[in-house]
Amino acid sequence: MAVNRNSDLYRSGINFLGILNDLKRRPEDAAKELSVSLEEIMSVIKGERELSHDIIKRATEIWPINIADFYLIHDDCPNGVKIMRAEHSKKTRRIMDRAGLPYYEYRDTAMSSVSLFRPEWIEELCIVDDNEPDNPNVQWNNGHFMHQFTYFIGDVNYYYQGPDGKKKVAIMNTGDSVYGTPFRPHSFATRKGASKNGLILALTYGNSLLISQQELSTLGVELGLNFYLDFSSKEHAFSSLLKFNRENASLTHEEVAKRTGIPKETIQSLEKSISSLPDDEVFTKLAKALNVNVRDLYPPDSVEDKVIVRYYKDALRWFYPESKAYEIVELVYSRHLPFSKALEFNIKKSDDNETLDLQMGLHQYIYNIGDSSVDLNWKINNTINHEKINPGDSVYVKPFVPHNFRSQGKLMVLRIAGRIAGDGQREFSILDKEDAHRAILETSMWFDPKGKN
Amino acid sequence: MAVNRNSDLYRSGINFLGILNDLKRRPEDAAKELSVSLEEIMSVIKGERELSHDIIKRATEIWPINIADFYLIHDDCPNGVKIMRAEHSKKTRRIMDRAGLPYYEYRDTAMSSVSLFRPEWIEELCIVDDNEPDNPNVQWNNGHFMHQFTYFIGDVNYYYQGPDGKKKVAIMNTGDSVYGTPFRPHSFATRKGASKNGLILALTYGNSLLISQQELSTLGVELGLNFYLDFSSKEHAFSSLLKFNRENASLTHEEVAKRTGIPKETIQSLEKSISSLPDDEVFTKLAKALNVNVRDLYPPDSVEDKVIVRYYKDALRWFYPESKAYEIVELVYSRHLPFSKALEFNIKKSDDNETLDLQMGLHQYIYNIGDSSVDLNWKINNTINHEKINPGDSVYVKPFVPHNFRSQGKLMVLRIAGRIAGDGQREFSILDKEDAHRAILETSMWFDPKGKN
Repeated sequence: MAVNRNSDLYRSGINFLGILNDLKRRPEDAAKELSVSLEEIMSVIKGERELSHDIIKRATEIWPINIADFYLIHDDCPNGVKIMRAEHSKKTRRIMDRAGLPYYEYRDTAMSSVSLFRPEWIEELCIVDDNEPDNPNVQWNNGHFMHQFTYFIGDVNYYYQGPDGKKKVAIMNTGDSVYGTPFRPHSFATRKGASKNGLILALTYGNSLLISQQELSTLGVELGLNFYLDFSSKEHAFSSLLKFNRENASLTHEEVAKRTGIPKETIQSLEKSISSLPDDEVFTKLAKALNVNVRDLYPPDSVEDKVIVRYYKDALRWFYPESKAYEIVELVYSRHLPFSKALEFNIKKSDDNETLDLQMGLHQYIYNIGDSSVDLNWKINNTINHEKINPGDSVYVKPFVPHNFRSQGKLMVLRIAGRIAGDGQREFSILDKEDAHRAILETSMWFDPKGKN
Repeated sequence: MAVNRNSDLYRSGINFLGILNDLKRRPEDAAKELSVSLEEIMSVIKGERELSHDIIKRATEIWPINIADFYLIHDDCPNGVKIMRAEHSKKTRRIMDRAGLPYYEYRDTAMSSVSLFRPEWIEELCIVDDNEPDNPNVQWNNGHFMHQFTYFIGDVNYYYQGPDGKKKVAIMNTGDSVYGTPFRPHSFATRKGASKNGLILALTYGNSLLISQQELSTLGVELGLNFYLDFSSKEHAFSSLLKFNRENASLTHEEVAKRTGIPKETIQSLEKSISSLPDDEVFTKLAKALNVNVRDLYPPDSVEDKVIVRYYKDALRWFYPESKAYEIVELVYSRHLPFSKALEFNIKKSDDNETLDLQMGLHQYIYNIGDSSVDLNWKINNTINHEKINPGDSVYVKPFVPHNFRSQGKLMVLRIAGRIAGDGQREFSILDKEDAHRAILETSMWFDPKGKN
């Protein structure tokens, strides 16, 4: 039987072998403990058959592992790109009522099981005749778990809470954009007199917190809430991080003092309240004493607002790359999310389809916000692919797929991290280079029973 | 029906609601799209019944989500601590042959489905009569995916590859310890003349890479390998990180030059080859231009060996806390893993059981390596718990459980990160404080259909 090395079944077999390796179980141990035949275990490992859900449940009863460990990320875009056409998007429409009246029309746009995007196209059905933040027709939500980047099309009011907790309104027009931190309540409405109802691209997405949320939920509020550090200022963030790292290592202030040569009282006050961050030398000494890195003690460079509004007219613009194929407009960003990048691409080039001038290590969501089609060219498995992206079409592109956009047109692009960028990528990069392949696709048991000298 | 808010069923219901929220599906949308009754959807959300695996599979066919998203981390230690007794550990013994001869005896020790530890007790059945690295009786493994911290008991030789790829041997005795990077081949053997066979505590564990591995495997080698940055020196790491972040933002060297005031040629050379890291001011300017933080561009403080050997006699020792309840010995560490801490605890205090002088934000594994029992006291749900930890017993303790060890005794302690420490914790800490609770346990839909002003 020919085995497709990218198939979910083949990858599930490898994953199962990985679970056995980690538990230091040979196939024969697994067969015995799970009460199934060695033949069945071997054919699962080889990717010839599926592990039944019943056996998975049995495995989680005898071993301290989780059902989710057995189920892989499903690859719904093996050729690197997944497109959702405007016509298909229309069919997913749901009218959402608030207080008994139609308030929003939602439509799905391109999503992939590989990425953490949950992007929606939303038409604002509620019309407001003023710009008062407490307009009684405006129905607020409770906020939601995901980060939200919003791109505005038309005359839309954005309602949100300011840092003081008071209701605010931002009068948005096409090209304006907003970032909202998880759980911040908000609302949208069309302004009276608009030629048509306002639209938003409400691009919600998960980030590191989504990945760690399961563990937080398992630990519960009593334990989990302790992970919340005081990031209300750079100085507080530093103090919190220092204390967190010192306690992880069970070091006393005295021992840190001894290791750094910094007086114990200074260490204590660094953890309490400081008016400015210490200098480089102190950072370096502290990190060394705690066996961590300077970056582990570094606070964010700035404390950002929970909601950030960016008007199109204030946005920076530049050409990319040297060929000036694109004029890029920088939409809203938060430095708290270093891997989230929202950009508008104005495409200036119609020739040279061969030069794939875009490639980056982020998951990418693209929406054609213009009124003309754009050519998308990309390469995967040594094959060049082409698709026309029409107005209202949306696209997901996997990280590091070499691609370009051609012909005149306008795209909204949102790039986000997945599970790798950040800590995961750094840990990947400390492996021996030869071993990096194995980290992606390990296919062997951790030892050869025949022995190896 | 009384609902236990910590039960897996209750948490699964909340998790299901979270999935629907993220997809912007109301219960009625879900019922329609999944072809099940609204009553069934509601009772799953309320934690009254399980979502069947068939419905989960159907959901993953119509929505771009994964089966694993529906399955939670199982909490097998609701009271914060999970103990494995020496007697139970003995029953899990497996003799591992290499080249037709018994080579190791493996025994499981304390493991929890909440944490990423896979710790084994291993007796070295192979006896070597020299300390040559290429002793033909020594059978090497292939290396494995997990990080390995090893603690040695008795006369054990540790075989590993040096940075030059050559075989090396470290002559280990009780208290010595070793860290091994994933996939590095190694072996262990008892030295001839030992009064009994050597033992090791082989504590393998997953870290950030384990969490991101699924995505790497989904992307495959062609795309995934691009995440591997050159971390062979601090300078190369910086250059790689700068280029990675610049390309994520689609900024040209020219645009970075414009934003920072640093000449374009300097930016280009920073990405190519530098002899020393730039100064603080340059870091700050670059981070600002890229909308990231200085720490996102910071390389690790040191480039560590793939295998690190630490002899007990060279280890630092200190007392903790002020009461001097413990004399702590620092076992091997790698600064590449800032959240991994291996310590030996020598317990000096037999009174004052009430003062729970230990609490930290890491998952903790404990093994009684001494020959007397130790008292473990801990608090959870406002209840104080006590257990005797006998020689050979092992324990898992959840993060942030307040606890102490009492009476004379000796413990080996390994602390590791879970899915939160690092990027996840920082993202958690930028939420509004009130919202941190919701991130742990969200129980409501993202909006109230009745409306909200």
